[in-house]
Amino acid sequence: MKKQILYLLKNGYPQAVSGESICKALGVSRTSVWKHIQVLRKDGYEIAAQPNVGYRLVSVPDFLYPEEVTYNLDTDFLGRTVYYYKEADSTNQIAKGLARQGAADGSLVVAEAQSAGHGRLSRGWFSPYGKGIWCSVILYPKINPIEVPPITMLTSVAIARAIKEVVGIEAGIKWPNDIYLKGKKVCGILTEMGAEMEQVKYLVLGVGLNVNIEAEDFPSPLKEVATSLKIESTQPVSRLRLLQVILKELEKLYFVWLKEGFAPILIQWKKLCVHLPGLVRLDSLKESWEGWTEDVDLSGALLLRLSTGEIRRFITGEISLREVT
Amino acid sequence: MKKQILYLLKNGYPQAVSGESICKALGVSRTSVWKHIQVLRKDGYEIAAQPNVGYRLVSVPDFLYPEEVTYNLDTDFLGRTVYYYKEADSTNQIAKGLARQGAADGSLVVAEAQSAGHGRLSRGWFSPYGKGIWCSVILYPKINPIEVPPITMLTSVAIARAIKEVVGIEAGIKWPNDIYLKGKKVCGILTEMGAEMEQVKYLVLGVGLNVNIEAEDFPSPLKEVATSLKIESTQPVSRLRLLQVILKELEKLYFVWLKEGFAPILIQWKKLCVHLPGLVRLDSLKESWEGWTEDVDLSGALLLRLSTGEIRRFITGEISLREVT
Repeated sequence: MKKQILYLLKNGYPQAVSGESICKALGVSRTSVWKHIQVLRKDGYEIAAQPNVGYRLVSVPDFLYPEEVTYNLDTDFLGRTVYYYKEADSTNQIAKGLARQGAADGSLVVAEAQSAGHGRLSRGWFSPYGKGIWCSVILYPKINPIEVPPITMLTSVAIARAIKEVVGIEAGIKWPNDIYLKGKKVCGILTEMGAEMEQVKYLVLGVGLNVNIEAEDFPSPLKEVATSLKIESTQPVSRLRLLQVILKELEKLYFVWLKEGFAPILIQWKKLCVHLPGLVRLDSLKESWEGWTEDVDLSGALLLRLSTGEIRRFITGEISLREVT
Repeated sequence: MKKQILYLLKNGYPQAVSGESICKALGVSRTSVWKHIQVLRKDGYEIAAQPNVGYRLVSVPDFLYPEEVTYNLDTDFLGRTVYYYKEADSTNQIAKGLARQGAADGSLVVAEAQSAGHGRLSRGWFSPYGKGIWCSVILYPKINPIEVPPITMLTSVAIARAIKEVVGIEAGIKWPNDIYLKGKKVCGILTEMGAEMEQVKYLVLGVGLNVNIEAEDFPSPLKEVATSLKIESTQPVSRLRLLQVILKELEKLYFVWLKEGFAPILIQWKKLCVHLPGLVRLDSLKESWEGWTEDVDLSGALLLRLSTGEIRRFITGEISLREVT
């Protein structure tokens, strides 16, 4: 009922919709309509009520409500089913559970805040209420587990493009999929999967994107290394619109990848990469290496030229940029 | 209590143990001891009771009870924790759930029967009560998902070696990890994992090994292609002993792999492989190929020489042996 009233108000926007026509359309009493309007207001919708005229939608809150995410969403399947949480432990955790139960392909899990958001290698991810896009997408590509890295890299390209389109600033990518603004991290992607040895059963793409976090919001160890879109653009950003554009770009690139493979996406990824070429340190679980980035290949591996002249291929690792001294 | 009485009887074996000494050791009444002896008999233990002498263990049933699997088990960690089921839907399914909850490294899930046992690519696996080893092992290796195939191949080597040791017959391996006896499949391995893009979080090695299945037990589509150890050796095989030897061999090879990598294991795998060289057809999800098997490389991929002379590398696929015409 709430959703239907909202739908009527949106259809009428920017005009008012008479209480009577709502009653008629939905077959309910004026009191009932009034009650639902109150609920919508509680949800953050600004609705003006004028005697003898009706209800007029004034503004939509910047929450990632399913009915808002899917409203005018320009995708075929991605984000068409939305699981919404005011607060979740971790959207990836929830998405994995849903995927194992066979949730629809392209389902989106979104939370206003995460109490146990995490990044790669079990690191935490700061996810304050209403200030970022903390979400996970469920996909069921028919691929081998070794083909997963390109999809994660594809996701980082989609997000960088969406940032450009919505906020107008150029973000860069650090191998394999961190997104940076002026040397600070603005977005991380955590891809998880369930798989048999030779076939992925489900893929969960987790996105943590700092949107409207203020510099002073970051806990001190993060202050030096993290940033947000608002900090860099000096303007608040509509999370709703940004999420919709991310979903659109992600689906578009996913379709390209399905049809043409990783090659055309890798070209875009390389253009966005901030260290091709560049002097980097690469830390793997066991060792550290230093060298010039030579290339990134079609399986997503990083080729490093070591000081010995040898070129070494890395499929895993965390890199940090080195100043040339 | 039941376990403690069993332990005392085993320690006394082949001698009888007096009822009085059991009462003393455990601080319980004769009636209580008698009741537990009855339960043990129900579990399949043959126990002789002689007046004025005591209880004597005559035989242990061939069930895969945790107390039997772990009794004199020659491993450091593998199979030390056992989850036992008379019937399970699928031991892999249970093991994945346990792994996500952090079950001990090396935990074993074992069932006398599976109602929904499955092989690779969602195929069913015939798992009749008490006639096979239907089990799954949980491991937490710190590896990248692309490093998983060697562990599955390692498992097939361990099982072939255990069959040789316990049953005395030579099994062969078909790439990547099916085990064959005289051209028929006797064992399949289904490896599943939970992983981040670059790190495996848990690995479940599922084993379906046909031990004492009779030829007439197999449903008709399987009759032509499947066999059991009993059929080929014409003798019933102790599942308990076989499982213990599998666990021992698996742990041994796992330690080798951790320390020295896949190279020494691949040498053994190749010796056991039934089609190196051989003319094979390889079916992948999308295409079919035919060629001579050239080699298997250190990442577990199969190198096929096609009729064009080209050598192609496969990481996935199902092969079938071709007669040379």
